[in-house]
Amino acid sequence: MKNELLLKALKGESVERPPVWMMRQAGRYLPDFMKLKEKYDFFTRCQTPELATEITLMPIDQMGVDAAIIFSDILVVLQAMNIEVEMRDGIGPYLPHPITNQSALNQVLLPDVDDRLGYVFEAVRMTKKELHDRVPLIGFAGAPWTLLCYAVQGQGSKNFDRAKAFCFQEPEMAKELLQKITTTTIAYLRAKIKAGADVIQLFDSWGGLLSPTDYQEFSWPYLQQIIDALSGTVPVIVFGKGCWFALQEMGKSGASALGIDWTCSARNARYLSGGQITLQGNFDPSRLLSPIPEIKTQVKQMINAFGKDRYIVNLGHGILPNIPVDHAKAFVDAVKEYGS
Amino acid sequence: MKNELLLKALKGESVERPPVWMMRQAGRYLPDFMKLKEKYDFFTRCQTPELATEITLMPIDQMGVDAAIIFSDILVVLQAMNIEVEMRDGIGPYLPHPITNQSALNQVLLPDVDDRLGYVFEAVRMTKKELHDRVPLIGFAGAPWTLLCYAVQGQGSKNFDRAKAFCFQEPEMAKELLQKITTTTIAYLRAKIKAGADVIQLFDSWGGLLSPTDYQEFSWPYLQQIIDALSGTVPVIVFGKGCWFALQEMGKSGASALGIDWTCSARNARYLSGGQITLQGNFDPSRLLSPIPEIKTQVKQMINAFGKDRYIVNLGHGILPNIPVDHAKAFVDAVKEYGS
Repeated sequence: MKNELLLKALKGESVERPPVWMMRQAGRYLPDFMKLKEKYDFFTRCQTPELATEITLMPIDQMGVDAAIIFSDILVVLQAMNIEVEMRDGIGPYLPHPITNQSALNQVLLPDVDDRLGYVFEAVRMTKKELHDRVPLIGFAGAPWTLLCYAVQGQGSKNFDRAKAFCFQEPEMAKELLQKITTTTIAYLRAKIKAGADVIQLFDSWGGLLSPTDYQEFSWPYLQQIIDALSGTVPVIVFGKGCWFALQEMGKSGASALGIDWTCSARNARYLSGGQITLQGNFDPSRLLSPIPEIKTQVKQMINAFGKDRYIVNLGHGILPNIPVDHAKAFVDAVKEYGS
Repeated sequence: MKNELLLKALKGESVERPPVWMMRQAGRYLPDFMKLKEKYDFFTRCQTPELATEITLMPIDQMGVDAAIIFSDILVVLQAMNIEVEMRDGIGPYLPHPITNQSALNQVLLPDVDDRLGYVFEAVRMTKKELHDRVPLIGFAGAPWTLLCYAVQGQGSKNFDRAKAFCFQEPEMAKELLQKITTTTIAYLRAKIKAGADVIQLFDSWGGLLSPTDYQEFSWPYLQQIIDALSGTVPVIVFGKGCWFALQEMGKSGASALGIDWTCSARNARYLSGGQITLQGNFDPSRLLSPIPEIKTQVKQMINAFGKDRYIVNLGHGILPNIPVDHAKAFVDAVKEYGS
């Protein structure tokens, strides 16, 4: 690997400057992405390895980030499990047949991942080839809890109240669904690693909607299963948005790094996670709308606060569609200028 | 006052059991409220003292809570400041002319609150009369930051990115707007107290969207100003949703109590707030969808975790519209049965 910053940071090795990448870095703020978006719908982009590869490489070539993350979506795992997922304009993900009872649950399959998700692994292989080992490639999956949110609610939501009601009223059914998602996710990620992914990131985007007690019941055990199953393969990064309350547990999980959102200061994050594990984050995505000189100042302050070692610079959530490209570039450049 | 539980808890005095009320307790889960909602639109309900009084009293009579909170909306303050606010079906609050530049900001007035918000004070006086001192009456206002979110974004939002961008790009304008809102809110709350409010609660519903640093810049100083201005009048409760990171500052602010959401455990809340101040919360509103026996068990566990003193039982955010009335009642009853 020509650029080993990310892998070094994940091993806890000292680096000259921390690595930097951005969640959703291959996305809607990039004009070239928008051109492809006009021509191909969402799942065509995900399911066509040539397109996924082209999109994945855009921020490497245009932003100069230190890692690639395969272009895909967390919901492809639900599709593979026989749950229909559409992407509707103005709504986002839409699942016409949400899983809200036992008979719907019985229709949820444990798929042959090579058969149903082969297009992702092909995209990984193709991207690895095109990358020529310039930077590591991150593969990812949604946390089982976050996928359950969509599977039960049927679409995005402010509080995913129907998904939570399902868990609270039918905990056994909820756990059967969570376990099916977990088992599929493990097979999916193993195949992704086999195809060439150098690092795995798990996204628990909706973990922060649960109380600490409910998180320990409906989210964390399934994430821990995945971490355990991938042990000895590649480094795993766990990002739970709003999950500051679970950082202690996460710090002892065997994960190589933890993602932090911008409501948790560097100091709190180091303290809560036990002080040893590599942390990743946590620039407020909206802060990329600040003037460029202020972005640069704040990035420097952020690195000083986290420390340059055991640290991966990132945003605290995905980059927003309305971020000017030169602001995103300034964020990346500020990291590269660090210490010089 | 016949029921002094809330006032005692706010003073830190020992009580037999903690008081209980629910945020949005006079709301859409109540069938009688829904009947009024069919007949009168949102602002008619707010602006007609007889209706506001009738709605405010519903949960006192039907749920048996230990406090009333005047039926109104945080956005009436913006209306009084010459900012148009509509309530649109399926959208919620909608502000056709958001404040996004200096000329719009110049149109924002510091109103004579008696002139523009007299209907609220009349509702407070009428409610106090109808209550016959059965329970204390809580008056409330939105935090200046939360009101700015609506004033600038123009409607509800997942991340209020336009409001945040305004603050980050035009901090001086943002602070001018925040100060205008603060000044108006102080006059508004003083008049509300004069009209008879026994307690004030400040709602910072969107404080948790800010980083700790930005919270200290764009939210907290204005809340502190309000707390200082009300010092020596009635007890003030500050509720910042998602603001666990600011509990230390809040604990030293002179507020009488702090609202806690369900992502912050009792133990963390006591630790972060300094261990002395009265806390209020933090049952996950979705958890009221659990079976009734489980609601009762969890309420008991929650009181045990917070302790019966210096504690006010509440939800961690507003009650959801789809909560069955008997589940809400079970929540209140469980508190009353505590220790017996």
